[in-house]
Amino acid sequence: MHSKLQQQFAFLIEIDKVKSIIRKSRVYHGTALENDAEHSWHICVMAMVLEEYSNVKIDLFKVIKMLLIHDLVEIYSGDTFLYAENRDKVFENEKKSAEKIFGMLPEAQAMEFMDIWIEFEERKSAEAKYASVLDRIQPLLSNCLHQGYTWKEHKVSKEMVLSKNKHIAEGSDALWEYAKELIEKASSEGCFVS
Amino acid sequence: MHSKLQQQFAFLIEIDKVKSIIRKSRVYHGTALENDAEHSWHICVMAMVLEEYSNVKIDLFKVIKMLLIHDLVEIYSGDTFLYAENRDKVFENEKKSAEKIFGMLPEAQAMEFMDIWIEFEERKSAEAKYASVLDRIQPLLSNCLHQGYTWKEHKVSKEMVLSKNKHIAEGSDALWEYAKELIEKASSEGCFVS
Repeated sequence: MHSKLQQQFAFLIEIDKVKSIIRKSRVYHGTALENDAEHSWHICVMAMVLEEYSNVKIDLFKVIKMLLIHDLVEIYSGDTFLYAENRDKVFENEKKSAEKIFGMLPEAQAMEFMDIWIEFEERKSAEAKYASVLDRIQPLLSNCLHQGYTWKEHKVSKEMVLSKNKHIAEGSDALWEYAKELIEKASSEGCFVS
Repeated sequence: MHSKLQQQFAFLIEIDKVKSIIRKSRVYHGTALENDAEHSWHICVMAMVLEEYSNVKIDLFKVIKMLLIHDLVEIYSGDTFLYAENRDKVFENEKKSAEKIFGMLPEAQAMEFMDIWIEFEERKSAEAKYASVLDRIQPLLSNCLHQGYTWKEHKVSKEMVLSKNKHIAEGSDALWEYAKELIEKASSEGCFVS
């Protein structure tokens, strides 16, 4: 048992590094850029609170497991900006990182975590679609609260935001309606570089 | 629907403040003090990975819900140091904070979150006992990785650490054995002020 426990703790110590993976968007209160651990915690609570808006009934526990571990690959691959141009290569790169980080766990757990991560990335299951809603709407709201901080910083247009976030509707029509309202309001307040 | 959704988002914006509640212990990698959001995320993943060491079979989803929201009261009450002398008054103070923060939610959710928080605090159910294991072992390990940083900073003795953490055994005998080994090792490495 003991060596297994030590293996598990080695993983739990390694993943602490996600606290220093800095994202492009700010915390809601204050000007600090948030890190992946903060973001992951926030979207888990969002998933709990907003469950009723999922288009279909989902296994919320599975959603939360996805959200807790979805960004661990960034310990090795770094945070890739949603609006970056090189996103096609990202999946293969992140998959190698997933094998590395989850491979630290005992085999059965490694497989379980890998499966959850791939399911999230593929965005085919109802759970993955709903999980992705929170992953997108959380930074979107940050930008609305900070006068389009990230969008302006990286010259992201309203059209790009609409295009990159429209799959929110696959998980929740209601939250996509809400997100579109937020984007329109942000637009009218000058949050996009025209 | 819309006003309910706005009410829920007002809560989700407010809880972002937990990202600026700074704790007494450091992140594992680096010297920064961690915040409540980072800590909450970390112990949720710990709960997933270490489930097999719970003394009894538990509802892991309930444990994770507890861990996700257990520190929200600190937005208003602040972080109370585990080894502080005024901890008796803490519960009543935090209960008021819980009513304030969870009271921002629609009534049914407010009641659900309040119940989960009280169950965690009372530490009577198997889930609360196991949740508390992670809440304790995570900062303990931080101190072992940082030569007893918090213990030295606040003049906490080995006896105090053993006494304040011994209830880990109520949730997991195996993890309490492991924790005691960590404490003994820390002691032999001079992590406590003698």
